[in-house]
Amino acid sequence: MEKHEDVLKLLMEALQEHITPTEVKEDTYDIPVGVSNRHIHLSKEDLNHLFGEGYQMSKLKDLSQPGQYACKETVTICGPKGAIEKVRILGPVRSKTQVEILEGDFYKLGKVTEPRLSGDLQGTPGITLVGPKGSVQTKEGLIVAQRHIHMTPEDAKRFDVHDGQVVSIEIKGPRGGIYKNVAVRANDSSLLECHIDIEEANAMNVNSLTKIKLIK
Amino acid sequence: MEKHEDVLKLLMEALQEHITPTEVKEDTYDIPVGVSNRHIHLSKEDLNHLFGEGYQMSKLKDLSQPGQYACKETVTICGPKGAIEKVRILGPVRSKTQVEILEGDFYKLGKVTEPRLSGDLQGTPGITLVGPKGSVQTKEGLIVAQRHIHMTPEDAKRFDVHDGQVVSIEIKGPRGGIYKNVAVRANDSSLLECHIDIEEANAMNVNSLTKIKLIK
Repeated sequence: MEKHEDVLKLLMEALQEHITPTEVKEDTYDIPVGVSNRHIHLSKEDLNHLFGEGYQMSKLKDLSQPGQYACKETVTICGPKGAIEKVRILGPVRSKTQVEILEGDFYKLGKVTEPRLSGDLQGTPGITLVGPKGSVQTKEGLIVAQRHIHMTPEDAKRFDVHDGQVVSIEIKGPRGGIYKNVAVRANDSSLLECHIDIEEANAMNVNSLTKIKLIK
Repeated sequence: MEKHEDVLKLLMEALQEHITPTEVKEDTYDIPVGVSNRHIHLSKEDLNHLFGEGYQMSKLKDLSQPGQYACKETVTICGPKGAIEKVRILGPVRSKTQVEILEGDFYKLGKVTEPRLSGDLQGTPGITLVGPKGSVQTKEGLIVAQRHIHMTPEDAKRFDVHDGQVVSIEIKGPRGGIYKNVAVRANDSSLLECHIDIEEANAMNVNSLTKIKLIK
């Protein structure tokens, strides 16, 4: 009898592990998606080199994350193999220049980099930027953006996740699937939105109306 | 005592359902990947219109699937919004012309289509093709290829799947994840290979050395 109960207890524990949903809820396809094309964040210094001393960028439109905006200005990025023109600058200026390209841009530029979170630039390759008033050879800062979810601390509580946690996202539809290695970025200056790039969006047929599900 | 055993039995069954791997085996990342760019299969009739009566295509290189090859010839495809030049023709000719584009090409062409398997063209939109000797307005055949796995009937037996079954594939790595809705195409004229397009490959950082895992 006691033995049975021991087995039962072990089984209950094992079973619990398997039936406890790792997903938040079945119907929580409620995270909006923002799809990024290749783009650049410039330091004040590099902005001066590319556009002239004291140049002020012009806002084209606000982005969904508070305080972030697309600029009217674009630059050309050049690698050893080729160049990509009209790469959009996003404002405001940052402490370091950061160039976020698509995986497919490797072939055009002849430069390989890796998925990194915004700001995590150490050891990444540099690239040449060309603007109307000059060019800059950056020492680092060329990345493919790691997919991530911006959220407020309240959202994080609701999803039972924390800033920096790595989760997965599920996407429905005829090209649906699961992306792993999605970083949670929870802070007071964020709005709930999952950021993926154009290739990630196209591969799973995601558009601006798509809602995704967070999976732990 | 009997009641305990009943509970135990039910638990064992429930547990079994959860611990029985739906995956073939933990280490079966053994399916090679073929990555496709946009391409065209031409009917004999359309080939004649585009390149001249009786024209014979020139082989550029063999593809991995037996009898299939890339041709030296390319065509331009044109939608209401724009054109894409140098789209590779694959041989040999087929009974129907089929144009396989990338999801991202929708924006360039101004034409929307859906994921379809090769040959399943009914109800798909047409597109304009331009060659050196003429142009063709196709009535249907514009698709985004549904991801699929070619295999022999022996492979199908090994994976315990059948021709036409829809499975998932898992990809490892920093951009890893799972693609659902992958069709099994099992027949004697196939070689084991999973076909995805460039956007699907880039989104999960897949290259020609990547091996993927089949998940049911």
